[in-house]
Amino acid sequence: MRTTMQAVVKAHAAAGVEIREVPVPDPGPGEVLVRVEAASVCGTDLHIYNWDQWAQGRIHPPLIPGHEFAGVVAAVGQGVTTVKEGDKVSAEMHVACGKCLQCRTGQAHICQHVRILGVDANGAFASYAIIPETNIWKLSPAIPHDYASLLDPLGNAVHTVLAGPIAAKTVLVTGCGAIGLFSIAVAKACGAAKVYAMEVNANRRSVAAAMGADLVLDPAKDKVEEQILEETGGTGVDVLLEMSGHPAAIRTAFSLLRTGGRASLLGIPSKPFELDFARDIIFKGAIVQGINGRKMFETWFQMEALLATGKLNLEPAITHRLKLSEFSQAMQLLQSGEAIKVILKPE
Amino acid sequence: MRTTMQAVVKAHAAAGVEIREVPVPDPGPGEVLVRVEAASVCGTDLHIYNWDQWAQGRIHPPLIPGHEFAGVVAAVGQGVTTVKEGDKVSAEMHVACGKCLQCRTGQAHICQHVRILGVDANGAFASYAIIPETNIWKLSPAIPHDYASLLDPLGNAVHTVLAGPIAAKTVLVTGCGAIGLFSIAVAKACGAAKVYAMEVNANRRSVAAAMGADLVLDPAKDKVEEQILEETGGTGVDVLLEMSGHPAAIRTAFSLLRTGGRASLLGIPSKPFELDFARDIIFKGAIVQGINGRKMFETWFQMEALLATGKLNLEPAITHRLKLSEFSQAMQLLQSGEAIKVILKPE
Amino acid sequence: MRTTMQAVVKAHAAAGVEIREVPVPDPGPGEVLVRVEAASVCGTDLHIYNWDQWAQGRIHPPLIPGHEFAGVVAAVGQGVTTVKEGDKVSAEMHVACGKCLQCRTGQAHICQHVRILGVDANGAFASYAIIPETNIWKLSPAIPHDYASLLDPLGNAVHTVLAGPIAAKTVLVTGCGAIGLFSIAVAKACGAAKVYAMEVNANRRSVAAAMGADLVLDPAKDKVEEQILEETGGTGVDVLLEMSGHPAAIRTAFSLLRTGGRASLLGIPSKPFELDFARDIIFKGAIVQGINGRKMFETWFQMEALLATGKLNLEPAITHRLKLSEFSQAMQLLQSGEAIKVILKPE
Amino acid sequence: MRTTMQAVVKAHAAAGVEIREVPVPDPGPGEVLVRVEAASVCGTDLHIYNWDQWAQGRIHPPLIPGHEFAGVVAAVGQGVTTVKEGDKVSAEMHVACGKCLQCRTGQAHICQHVRILGVDANGAFASYAIIPETNIWKLSPAIPHDYASLLDPLGNAVHTVLAGPIAAKTVLVTGCGAIGLFSIAVAKACGAAKVYAMEVNANRRSVAAAMGADLVLDPAKDKVEEQILEETGGTGVDVLLEMSGHPAAIRTAFSLLRTGGRASLLGIPSKPFELDFARDIIFKGAIVQGINGRKMFETWFQMEALLATGKLNLEPAITHRLKLSEFSQAMQLLQSGEAIKVILKPE
Repeated sequence: MRTTMQAVVKAHAAAGVEIREVPVPDPGPGEVLVRVEAASVCGTDLHIYNWDQWAQGRIHPPLIPGHEFAGVVAAVGQGVTTVKEGDKVSAEMHVACGKCLQCRTGQAHICQHVRILGVDANGAFASYAIIPETNIWKLSPAIPHDYASLLDPLGNAVHTVLAGPIAAKTVLVTGCGAIGLFSIAVAKACGAAKVYAMEVNANRRSVAAAMGADLVLDPAKDKVEEQILEETGGTGVDVLLEMSGHPAAIRTAFSLLRTGGRASLLGIPSKPFELDFARDIIFKGAIVQGINGRKMFETWFQMEALLATGKLNLEPAITHRLKLSEFSQAMQLLQSGEAIKVILKPE
Repeated sequence: MRTTMQAVVKAHAAAGVEIREVPVPDPGPGEVLVRVEAASVCGTDLHIYNWDQWAQGRIHPPLIPGHEFAGVVAAVGQGVTTVKEGDKVSAEMHVACGKCLQCRTGQAHICQHVRILGVDANGAFASYAIIPETNIWKLSPAIPHDYASLLDPLGNAVHTVLAGPIAAKTVLVTGCGAIGLFSIAVAKACGAAKVYAMEVNANRRSVAAAMGADLVLDPAKDKVEEQILEETGGTGVDVLLEMSGHPAAIRTAFSLLRTGGRASLLGIPSKPFELDFARDIIFKGAIVQGINGRKMFETWFQMEALLATGKLNLEPAITHRLKLSEFSQAMQLLQSGEAIKVILKPE
Repeated sequence: MRTTMQAVVKAHAAAGVEIREVPVPDPGPGEVLVRVEAASVCGTDLHIYNWDQWAQGRIHPPLIPGHEFAGVVAAVGQGVTTVKEGDKVSAEMHVACGKCLQCRTGQAHICQHVRILGVDANGAFASYAIIPETNIWKLSPAIPHDYASLLDPLGNAVHTVLAGPIAAKTVLVTGCGAIGLFSIAVAKACGAAKVYAMEVNANRRSVAAAMGADLVLDPAKDKVEEQILEETGGTGVDVLLEMSGHPAAIRTAFSLLRTGGRASLLGIPSKPFELDFARDIIFKGAIVQGINGRKMFETWFQMEALLATGKLNLEPAITHRLKLSEFSQAMQLLQSGEAIKVILKPE
Repeated sequence: MRTTMQAVVKAHAAAGVEIREVPVPDPGPGEVLVRVEAASVCGTDLHIYNWDQWAQGRIHPPLIPGHEFAGVVAAVGQGVTTVKEGDKVSAEMHVACGKCLQCRTGQAHICQHVRILGVDANGAFASYAIIPETNIWKLSPAIPHDYASLLDPLGNAVHTVLAGPIAAKTVLVTGCGAIGLFSIAVAKACGAAKVYAMEVNANRRSVAAAMGADLVLDPAKDKVEEQILEETGGTGVDVLLEMSGHPAAIRTAFSLLRTGGRASLLGIPSKPFELDFARDIIFKGAIVQGINGRKMFETWFQMEALLATGKLNLEPAITHRLKLSEFSQAMQLLQSGEAIKVILKPE
């Protein structure tokens, strides 16, 4: 086996990354060494690359980023029993503490002491990655090879869509980044009556249609309120899946949520914002859910099962495939809004 | 308007029915007169026709049976505001009392004093039927014309399938009469991972496949336990939809329910039977739900929404279309097992 | 029977009311005439009395206000079967349309076309009141006489407390008006682990303690965050019952809600306000519920059952008992913050 | 520290046990050595003692039984961080595999590969016991010392009672062994409207009354159906907590469950039995739940919180306190029905 590997390294407390040759790590007890076959980039990686305020407060260089990937088990540490060399795997990169109230009551996805691989410790933008056995997900043969590196954001979408009843419901998805787009496909596959999408970027709007949205609106030009009220007989939508984090979109969306509806919020607003709680939540008897990560591991079982039905076509959202060494190009494609999901192949 | 109409009449406390010309009834206050365009037959109608023990205890002739239909509003009684002449409609034929604990807490489908039109009062096997406004369902243009008379049994299926999470779940349907068959289509449309069906009648098994079942088994010949355990990796199914009412099928099905699974029971066993509660329910931490009728009117909104998606193909289950005057022939087709749903057209 | 009666009348579009002698109304079909024995005043009545902006937009004089009361059936209209002369009753004063999506799916408490007696039509501040049979609540003998006029606000409290699990939970109640105070008693009776209360008014704080709060804090003086985090081992509370409608209190309360907690909002903020959705809802995976009115009629069954246990001591919140003719004095007691619940007796 | 300890040992595949002096075990990595201060006996221990058919199929001597206890940490193995020497602790004795579907989806209490300490491996009827850190429960100071060894059966009761809404509900508890008795206290503390109990043993009936049951019936003498229907206005009970495992009691109880009610089954019937599924579950729209063990660790948090309220008086169910060396006497007291909970003190 190789002793060194290619890795994307955030070497310094500054913008940019380096592509370096570094030692292949050894799996300790309970750890798994995975040869990375495909890794996918995410907005978080762009924050780290750009070294913005959030990154400056959270990231401690040197760090190998990357938290979306799939690969093959290369070696296992002492005591590992659930996978063996040669198994195809992906992983949940949120490592829960296992000891807090949330972890001990089936809510590890909101662990008080979570540590994220690729953010708080080395991740998957490298030829090899070290993953605790508890977090390894052995891939079903039913999962298409090209989708295996997308389970992290697909899991966000599945978690949000299935956080309440979705079959026979009208649905509004606000924000059509990767997770919003995946949510459209998941909602349709799970029997949603109609899925309406709202997005400012024209490229993403066309992908939203390809993912199965029944109606895709541009908040900058379309009369969103009018059209969605007309579509829903004046009632508003049953379910809001908020993926934008933009206050204006969120306010519009809440005004379109029907009395007694569900709003599941995953998009992260960058700061506090105003909402008309009386009109939009209280008198409406609305249910609002904060959504974070993926349920460990209920969401993973759900993803596997949904992918196996063959009803989830994620292809339209995969806009680019590059070499891992072309990482900076991937960042630029993401920054410009040209790319949605970019899949990287290490050497 | 006509003053007399064609009607199927259970005239006497004996087997059989008569096709008679009877007066068209007048709608009283809060009532709607519907011109029946299509009515569908059900096992209950066969019980009434055959005058079996259940029918002898429940039915008081003379009675016009029939509780599955669609039509057009011909006239409305005093105070009716939600429909008008010419509207296409169907109806929930369980008339709830509105005053019992169940009715006052959102569970009118299990009203303690329910009265069923077509069983306890005149129903829809006639050119015209009288329906209380509370029970009328105004049809969405999205509902295909041929399906409009099937909303009662489709509603049983939707109620059962959506009584718990179904997306990404493995499902076993035991018994492929009309409701079982509809359940297959509904479960698939709502994102079920796999739907396995079990049925003794070869004709129904082939319809089950046409409705979308992933695997259809004959309990008389196939190794049901073995095959379903193999399909589910030894775990058993997540969800059991019991539509047969047969003790042997129910016992087999419970043994195949996974630990922590859901069993929704709609099929009616004709008498008490033995089950291994310790192994099949208690140690398993199973959830067992008795399912009755359709939720008023949540299930109706769900049906309408699911039919509008175009994903529910009910056609394979409609085996015959006859004139209302051919009612006895419909009964024979049902009795022989040759027919599943027979749609009747009054004159 | 008397032909005229004493009534509080909002006669003109201006502040104040008149005490008048008006004709006793006749119950129409489906209506019940109730002789009012006790009626209770509420903040809404003060809005109407003061003729504030909300009242100017909603109220159409002349109107008899009053929506909290108990009494005895004096006469019933045609077709009424569930109560008879002499029965002790109260009533749900939200009259739902029965025809909208919400009404037809078990959510009549958020009916799109609700009409409130005492606000949109004559209410109960009179010797007699007319109530539709659908809204009458026949009182169990188990309900203490003095509490029978408080079922409307007690119902708000029960609806809020029981909108999610409460047994074994730590609870924060923000705002100790009548509904907040009742919520304390209800939460304790239903097995809450600890109930913390937050209130600026000293009088209400002492009543909060009398209702059973384990810790009562003054946000103006106490270190609320510090004390509640210490009480909950740094985790925050499991459940927030928001009864104040004050943005500052709501923000403090959300910051004290534990990761994965439930926030049930009943207090009505007077305008939009800022919240840190990312920190307080999304990353926390919180559940936020808008709460409106009382569930029809699940909440009423719950109230009756809880009162019958003898565990709900509402007495500390009943601060005054006056004659109906002393209505303006009641308004002043409420305005000054001196009164919590004032019970009025008509003549 | 001592090198040998007193232990109850099932030495041979035959009835009876031996009290022996055996070596104090060493805690391995991730294990905790606990000095047992109190241990409590359970029906399972009697099965092991009597060497009945179940025991012959499950138990592999030599074994130290005992799965209900409390004590003090005496030493910790490598890597243990959540407790330290001197901490007061109890433990969940069901050791879940952590790797099956159920364990990975928050249902470790129904793990497919569970191993029970005191049944499948050495337990707590000794001066010291070895417990994996994952299963240790650090005792809150709020838990009364005498109750600390009863958390296992109390947890069964809490799990059953809180498996659905209980506040404001009428409840029937069938079977007043320890878990049934604890269920009465828990249901009352959580706001149950009324708790009815059914039990054949006179001693247990009097304890049931002491635990707070509103009505205690003897199925051998009382007209159970008549009395409970009268108590519930002819409707039947909202919730059934089945703790007897006796077919006749279960059938009676199901006939008394109201339409739309919940039946939570924990008692273990010794073999399959007949039930009228159509009448008792299906037409009724009932929810039936199999209940097993305690939720890990939601139930433990709930127990701690409920005990801290001071509302759970378990004392009436603690009938005897003996030395561990008097184990055989404890078995005889249990066998005769004289004892409910016997607490043993090791030397």
